[in-house]
Amino acid sequence: MLFRSYPRSGGGLELDLLEALYLLECEKLQVQIGGRDVDHATLYRRAARSTDALQPRYIVYRDLRQRGYIVKVDQGDFNFRVYPRGASPHNSQAKNWVLAISERDIFNIAGLLEKSETSQRTRKDLLLGVVDEEGDITYYTLEEAEPGGYTEEGPTNAEGALIDDAVIVLGAEADRLYENGFYGKKIGPMLQLSLLEAVYLMEKGRLDIRSIRSGQRMGMNGLLSSAKRSQPDFDMRMSAYKDLRSRGMVVKTGFKYGTHFRVYEGNPSKHHSRYLVHVVPDDYSTVWAEISRAVRLAHGVKKEILLASSGQLLRYVKLTRVRP
Amino acid sequence: MLFRSYPRSGGGLELDLLEALYLLECEKLQVQIGGRDVDHATLYRRAARSTDALQPRYIVYRDLRQRGYIVKVDQGDFNFRVYPRGASPHNSQAKNWVLAISERDIFNIAGLLEKSETSQRTRKDLLLGVVDEEGDITYYTLEEAEPGGYTEEGPTNAEGALIDDAVIVLGAEADRLYENGFYGKKIGPMLQLSLLEAVYLMEKGRLDIRSIRSGQRMGMNGLLSSAKRSQPDFDMRMSAYKDLRSRGMVVKTGFKYGTHFRVYEGNPSKHHSRYLVHVVPDDYSTVWAEISRAVRLAHGVKKEILLASSGQLLRYVKLTRVRP
Repeated sequence: MLFRSYPRSGGGLELDLLEALYLLECEKLQVQIGGRDVDHATLYRRAARSTDALQPRYIVYRDLRQRGYIVKVDQGDFNFRVYPRGASPHNSQAKNWVLAISERDIFNIAGLLEKSETSQRTRKDLLLGVVDEEGDITYYTLEEAEPGGYTEEGPTNAEGALIDDAVIVLGAEADRLYENGFYGKKIGPMLQLSLLEAVYLMEKGRLDIRSIRSGQRMGMNGLLSSAKRSQPDFDMRMSAYKDLRSRGMVVKTGFKYGTHFRVYEGNPSKHHSRYLVHVVPDDYSTVWAEISRAVRLAHGVKKEILLASSGQLLRYVKLTRVRP
Repeated sequence: MLFRSYPRSGGGLELDLLEALYLLECEKLQVQIGGRDVDHATLYRRAARSTDALQPRYIVYRDLRQRGYIVKVDQGDFNFRVYPRGASPHNSQAKNWVLAISERDIFNIAGLLEKSETSQRTRKDLLLGVVDEEGDITYYTLEEAEPGGYTEEGPTNAEGALIDDAVIVLGAEADRLYENGFYGKKIGPMLQLSLLEAVYLMEKGRLDIRSIRSGQRMGMNGLLSSAKRSQPDFDMRMSAYKDLRSRGMVVKTGFKYGTHFRVYEGNPSKHHSRYLVHVVPDDYSTVWAEISRAVRLAHGVKKEILLASSGQLLRYVKLTRVRP
């Protein structure tokens, strides 16, 4: 639905429906239907009848306008183009592609990564405006990230015992293991390794493991089957664990934050962790409320949240809450 | 497995296995097996062979001991009894019942409510020590709560239009609806009501709704079926919404916090919300990592988290992170 408005100049100007609604709300436009003036409520009702998802689109549109941005409606992959503050389509390239999303919409990591790539190819950042059921908007940027650290580790050779779902290392070897890559956690005289750490170190030939019950040396298959019994998504976690380690980072459990990992760029006893990483399948879908919670929690503890999309490639998706 | 230790007095003393391990770790006890002294590592390995879930139990036990508490091993519904700091079984009642939980254990709301009741009947608080895969402990108290507020509301009578999954009210009625119970949210000239608010107000006879497409007045059944299409768990949310409203509280979406509701004791424009409420079935089970995340997030924004257990009765479970 297009509107023809006749400002001072006398020339016609085609307006998108959202623009018309907004200008009518601001009393900068009169709209006539069948020769009679209509008010905002009437036009809104008519618009809602003919437009899918009018509410989130209108709410994001008017919010960005009220923040002083020029917003253009897009008919392609995105909902809007936004220009830098103070700039317009006449003198500037757009800064963002914007998607207006309802909190009831599904978050799909593959779909959004694709939107982000499309966005980057045209040198614009992807901005997501997520509208909750009260009409409040939370804005996010979404982009692919390449996290990295600077942890160096030397060779070690320790022996551990598998107890329940952890591996315990005793004696001086425990200290060397911690000093070379910050593996495990000291509990009294013991170093407790997570199953991920144990499998990783065993693959590197840095750890032998004996079963606590039989005293027998365990092979990799035995350890892996124990690990998978205790964590059905062990392989997916492991692929991200290895990749993060190969990037020079120290990877610890993110249990206290409700994510898979907290990740350090260096020595975890000297610095706070920079990232929270949650590993998901590359076709991962969830409700936006879940994403909202993860991002808010990470910001609350001053960390960045990365979703590790685990498929044939491992890709990191960084979601950041922003104020446009 | 019990140990007989022979301290100075020469008299015998029966020790629980956890006590023996801890005293051995602190070098306050010698343990002999077959006439030969054993070290902590050897005893730990033997203990792990004969004891389920030794690791979380030992970690919580030694942590509470190191914090200066007297801890007694319980053979019944709980793992430990803990005495007030400075007190002992000779001169005091225990202060807490303690459960040692592994982060891999399942959180079950019905089971924990029952433990909490048992605990309250013996006038002790329930303390949960949740051990993550690195051996770090997060402590929680869990108790039933009776939240309440002081919001008063007068009668109103408004008409709204259902658009997508919200109800829009226009004109002066919108302001009266907001002033009498703080329903909805103003967006420009419109008041946007959530579907929960709309159904609640319609049941109270305070709102009529017309379909935006047909202009027809909608009955309660039509509105409810729209609501359930958009939110399959609508009935469960509604039962908690009504109950919280009946307690004099103002209930708004908790979307930004990843929970169902944020709840105010009074005027939401004058005060912060006190509670985050998440509604779950009364047989709700989840991984502890999920609970950990919800509690941490609520604390991060200085709110209390309540799980509303929705069955024949509606009960509120309050989880609080504590430092013993």
